[in-house]
Amino acid sequence: MTDLEIAKAATLKPISEIAKQAGLHEDQIEMYGNYKAKVNLKSQRNVDFGDHKLVLVTSINPTPAGEGKSTVLVGLGDAMNQLNKQTMIAMREPSMGPVMGIKGGATGGGYSQVIPMEDINLHFTGDIHALTSAHNTLMALVNNYLQHGNILNLDPRRIIWNRVVDVNDRTLRQVITGLGGITKGIPQESSFDITAASELMAILCLASDLSDLKSRISKIIVGYTYDKVPVSVGELGFEDAITILLKDAFKPNLVQTIAHTPTLIHGGPFANIAHGCNSVIATKTALQLSQYTVTEAGFGADLGAEKFLDIKRPVLGKTPDAVVIVATVRALKYNGGQSVKELTTENIEALTNGLPNLQRHIQNIQSYELPTVVAINRFTSDTDAELELVKEYCESQGVTAVVTESWGKGGNGTLDLAAEVIKLADSNFEFKQLYNDDDSIETKINKIVKNIYHGKSVTFSKKAQTQLKGFKKNGWENLPVCIAKTQYSFSDDASKLGAPTDFNVEIREFIPKMGAGFIVALAGNVMTMPGLPKKPAALNMKIDADGEITGLF
Amino acid sequence: MTDLEIAKAATLKPISEIAKQAGLHEDQIEMYGNYKAKVNLKSQRNVDFGDHKLVLVTSINPTPAGEGKSTVLVGLGDAMNQLNKQTMIAMREPSMGPVMGIKGGATGGGYSQVIPMEDINLHFTGDIHALTSAHNTLMALVNNYLQHGNILNLDPRRIIWNRVVDVNDRTLRQVITGLGGITKGIPQESSFDITAASELMAILCLASDLSDLKSRISKIIVGYTYDKVPVSVGELGFEDAITILLKDAFKPNLVQTIAHTPTLIHGGPFANIAHGCNSVIATKTALQLSQYTVTEAGFGADLGAEKFLDIKRPVLGKTPDAVVIVATVRALKYNGGQSVKELTTENIEALTNGLPNLQRHIQNIQSYELPTVVAINRFTSDTDAELELVKEYCESQGVTAVVTESWGKGGNGTLDLAAEVIKLADSNFEFKQLYNDDDSIETKINKIVKNIYHGKSVTFSKKAQTQLKGFKKNGWENLPVCIAKTQYSFSDDASKLGAPTDFNVEIREFIPKMGAGFIVALAGNVMTMPGLPKKPAALNMKIDADGEITGLF
Repeated sequence: MTDLEIAKAATLKPISEIAKQAGLHEDQIEMYGNYKAKVNLKSQRNVDFGDHKLVLVTSINPTPAGEGKSTVLVGLGDAMNQLNKQTMIAMREPSMGPVMGIKGGATGGGYSQVIPMEDINLHFTGDIHALTSAHNTLMALVNNYLQHGNILNLDPRRIIWNRVVDVNDRTLRQVITGLGGITKGIPQESSFDITAASELMAILCLASDLSDLKSRISKIIVGYTYDKVPVSVGELGFEDAITILLKDAFKPNLVQTIAHTPTLIHGGPFANIAHGCNSVIATKTALQLSQYTVTEAGFGADLGAEKFLDIKRPVLGKTPDAVVIVATVRALKYNGGQSVKELTTENIEALTNGLPNLQRHIQNIQSYELPTVVAINRFTSDTDAELELVKEYCESQGVTAVVTESWGKGGNGTLDLAAEVIKLADSNFEFKQLYNDDDSIETKINKIVKNIYHGKSVTFSKKAQTQLKGFKKNGWENLPVCIAKTQYSFSDDASKLGAPTDFNVEIREFIPKMGAGFIVALAGNVMTMPGLPKKPAALNMKIDADGEITGLF
Repeated sequence: MTDLEIAKAATLKPISEIAKQAGLHEDQIEMYGNYKAKVNLKSQRNVDFGDHKLVLVTSINPTPAGEGKSTVLVGLGDAMNQLNKQTMIAMREPSMGPVMGIKGGATGGGYSQVIPMEDINLHFTGDIHALTSAHNTLMALVNNYLQHGNILNLDPRRIIWNRVVDVNDRTLRQVITGLGGITKGIPQESSFDITAASELMAILCLASDLSDLKSRISKIIVGYTYDKVPVSVGELGFEDAITILLKDAFKPNLVQTIAHTPTLIHGGPFANIAHGCNSVIATKTALQLSQYTVTEAGFGADLGAEKFLDIKRPVLGKTPDAVVIVATVRALKYNGGQSVKELTTENIEALTNGLPNLQRHIQNIQSYELPTVVAINRFTSDTDAELELVKEYCESQGVTAVVTESWGKGGNGTLDLAAEVIKLADSNFEFKQLYNDDDSIETKINKIVKNIYHGKSVTFSKKAQTQLKGFKKNGWENLPVCIAKTQYSFSDDASKLGAPTDFNVEIREFIPKMGAGFIVALAGNVMTMPGLPKKPAALNMKIDADGEITGLF
C-alpha cells in the first residue's frame, strides 16, 4: 500500500475530540473542516513549562536513500502515548510547490503518518498562502513607495526584498520587473523564492506572540538608501498591514496521527537560508498542553539541530531534554560509498565506512552535553549483521541505538525507542552553548565550522568582508548566524560524504534578516527556488467526479 | 460609526446554526472557524429549482459618488426574510489586493453587511489563494514543458497564459522572466494579473460540478505552436493536478448578514475581462435551498447584467424572475454633470440631465422582457424633490421606483423594495435573448453594442480581424462574447457619462478563453493589474496585541 492509501484507510477522529484529548477548551480552537483546527491560546509569553519534557528528533546527513526522520518522529509520538505518557507532536508544514514536482510529502509515512495528509500537503489551513500574499504585498508597498515620492531616498538598485510563490518555477529565479513605462513602476532586476524561504516564514516561526510578530516585521530590512543606510519596514509604516495578513496564519494548526496523537503542524522555514524548525508558538503550545513534546529540526543535525539549539532554543526558552538522531543502514552505506542501486545488498564494508558520519553527529550533540539516543529506522532489506554493527558502534560511542519499525508498525514499531527516550529525558544534564551571545559573527561562524562541521578553516570573500564592516556600523555584529550550505555533507561540497576533514568553508555573502534576528551566511550556492523535474509528479495525479484523489503520493 | 465598527458590534450566530436555518444537514458543511463554512452538496447537475425565485440586483454605471449595489442587495435579502419569505443571498468574494489600496470592501455597508467582514475581505476561506497557486502552478508546468523537450513544439513567444497575484502591484504589469541561463528557463516577456482576472476564476464561477471544472480546465488554451495551432491544458495532461488544487475552493462559502440571512460568497471574477458574477454552483445551491435567491452582477447593468443574462444564465439554467436596478440621486447628478464635491447640494437640473443613464438601463432590462424595479438607495443629503423626481421619471418609463435606506436601517430600510420584488417575481414573463447562440462573434458584438450600449457602430482592428479568421479555423466562431470595456460609460470612453449616442466601439483584440467558454473582446484599455494609490489604505490599518484590527474600512 502507498502512503496515501494507508492514510485514506485510516479512521479519523473529529478534531474537536483530539483537541479535548489534548486539554484544549472549545473556545481555544477554530475548526477548519472536521479534521483540522487552529489553536488560539491567548497568552504565550513567559510560559512556565514546569517539568514538561521536550524531545528533539534530528538525523544524519540526508541522502537519496531516505532516512525517514518524520516517520520516526510520528511513530515516537504514538509510542509514547501507548506507554501512557501524554505526548504531542510539533512539526513543520510541508511546502506545496515540491508536491507537484517530486512524489513524497513530509508528514511521515506508512503507519506513522499525520492525517489528513492530502490537505496537509496541499493548501492545509492556508498559512503558506497567507505568507505568500503578505510577502508580495510588502514588495508592492515598497515599490509603490518608490513610485510615489520616495522621501527616504531608497535606492531602487539596493532593494533586498523580493517576491515569493509556493510553486517550483525556475523561470522566476531571475526576472526584470517594472518594464513598460512610468505607470508600470521602476525597472528592476529581481527574483522569486519559494515561500518557505521568505523571511516572513522565519519570523512566523520565531515570534513569541502577536506583538513580537509585529515588532519583528517592523525590523525587516527591505533595502538601502543611496547613502547605504538600511531601511526597515517600520520606517515605512507597513508593519501593521503585514501583521494583519498573518494574524490567522500565526495560530498553530492541530491535526492527528493515524493513532490519534494530537499533532501541531505550523510553519516550515527552509533549513538552509532559515532555521528549519516549526514555529516557537506551536512548540510552546505543545509544551504547555502535554507532558512530552516531540519535535524535529530540518535536514541533518549539522544544519537542523545546530540551528534548533543556537537559534530557536534561546527564543523558545526551553532546551531539549533528549535528542534522537535518526539513521538508516541504507543511508550509512550510501555515505560509505555504496551506490543507490546496491543499497538493498548487505555490505558491511560500506556500512563501516559510512559510520563516521553518524559518529560525528553523535559527538556534536554530545558537545552540547545533551542526552542522546540513535534510532535505526529499519528497512526490510537491512540484515541482522548490519543492524548489529550499527548498534555496537553506537555503544562504543557511549550512546544507545534502538531499532525502529515506524513505517510498517507505527507506534508498535517504535516502543523501544519511546522507552529509551522517556528514560533519557529524566537524566540530569547541563546544556553547554556552542557560542556566546556576544561573540562576533566571525567567531560564531568559526565555532560552527570547526566544532560542528569539523572543517579546518573559514575564509570570507571580499564581498563578505565588506558586508561585515557595514554590519558593525549598523550594530548587527553580535547576532546569531544562520549558515546556508548544502545539507548533503558536513562541508560546503555536496559530494564529500561521510565525515570529511581538512576542508575550508568560504562564506560568499551575508544576508541580514533583522526580523528573524539572524544573519544568513551563504556557503556555496543555495537554492531558494526549486525547479520541476522532467516528469513532474503533477502528471500522475488524478481526481474523479467525487473529488477522490489518487497518485498524489 | 464605520462599517467595520458596525460589523464588530454585530452579534454573530454560530455558522452551524445559520446552516441549519438554511436547510443544510451537518454533513453538508465544513466549518472554517466558527462563522464561516464551506457547503458541499454532492449533486449539482440538472437540479430542478421548482418554483424557487431568482432576483438579480444590478445598477446604473458606477461613479465616484457610490451606488451601494451590495448594500441594497444585502438589505433586500434581510427584508425578504423579515417578510417571512425564506431567502438566501449569493454574492461575489472581494479581491484582497484592492483592500490594501483603497478603503472600502464589497460586503455591503452599514447595517446591510455580510460578516465577519474582516475575514471576507482578507483571506476568507482561501479560495482566491488556491486560484493563485493553481494559476501559477499551471504556468510553471507549461514552462517546465518548454524546458524539457517541448514535444508539441510550443512557441515560447506565443504563450498566452501568464501569472497572477492577489496584490495590487503595478511593477508586475510587464516583466521579463527566465533570465540567467539554461537552468533558469527560457527568457520571455510576460505579465501578472490580479487573481480575479484569471481564467481559472471565470471557470470556477461557471463550472456546474467537479467533472465540468476539470473538463473546462482541460480546454484552457495556454499558447500556440510554431505552426499557430492552439495547445490546450488537456493536451499537456495538466488538468487533474490543477483541478486537485481547486477542489476545496470549488465549494461555496456560507456566512451571514448582520440580520443572520444565510449568504453564499463564492468566486469573484472581473466584470470586464470576465463575466463578473458569483459562481454558478453557489447560485444553484441557494436556489435549491431557499424560496428566494438574491444575487448580483458586476459593475453597471451594461456590463454586469448583460453578462449575467448572456453568459451565466444559460449555464445556470435559470432566468431571473425579477431585476433590481440600483441608482442613487448622487450618482445620477454626477452623470448629469455635477462635480463630486457638490453632490450634497440639491440640483434638479443635474439630476434631470443624469436620468437618461437610468432610463437606458431600464430599457435594456426591459428589452430582455424581464420584470424590473428601480431601487433608489437614499443618502442623507438627498432632498424630497430629488427623490420624487426620480420616482416620477421611473413611473413614466413603466417601472416602479422604491426608496431604500439599507445602509442606515438594514432590512427595515428595504421592506418596500422587498414587497415590490416579491410581487414582481410572481409576474408572468417570457425571457427574450439578446442574441442567438449560433450568431457569429461579429453579430453578437454588434447586437451588444447597438442594443445594450446604444452605440452607432462597431469596428475591428486589423489584429482583431486576423484573429477572427483564426477563430473560424479553430471552430470558435459561435462562442458567447465577453466585452471588456470601461464600466463608467455605455461607450468605450470613460468620460462619456449619461447616455451617450453616436459613438463607435473599436474592438482592439480578442482573448480566447476556451475554459470559461467565451471570447473576450477588448474595447479600449483594460486594467487587469491595479496599482496602489499614493497613500495606500494599508498605512491606516492597525492591529493590537490581541489581534483586534482597526482602520481596515
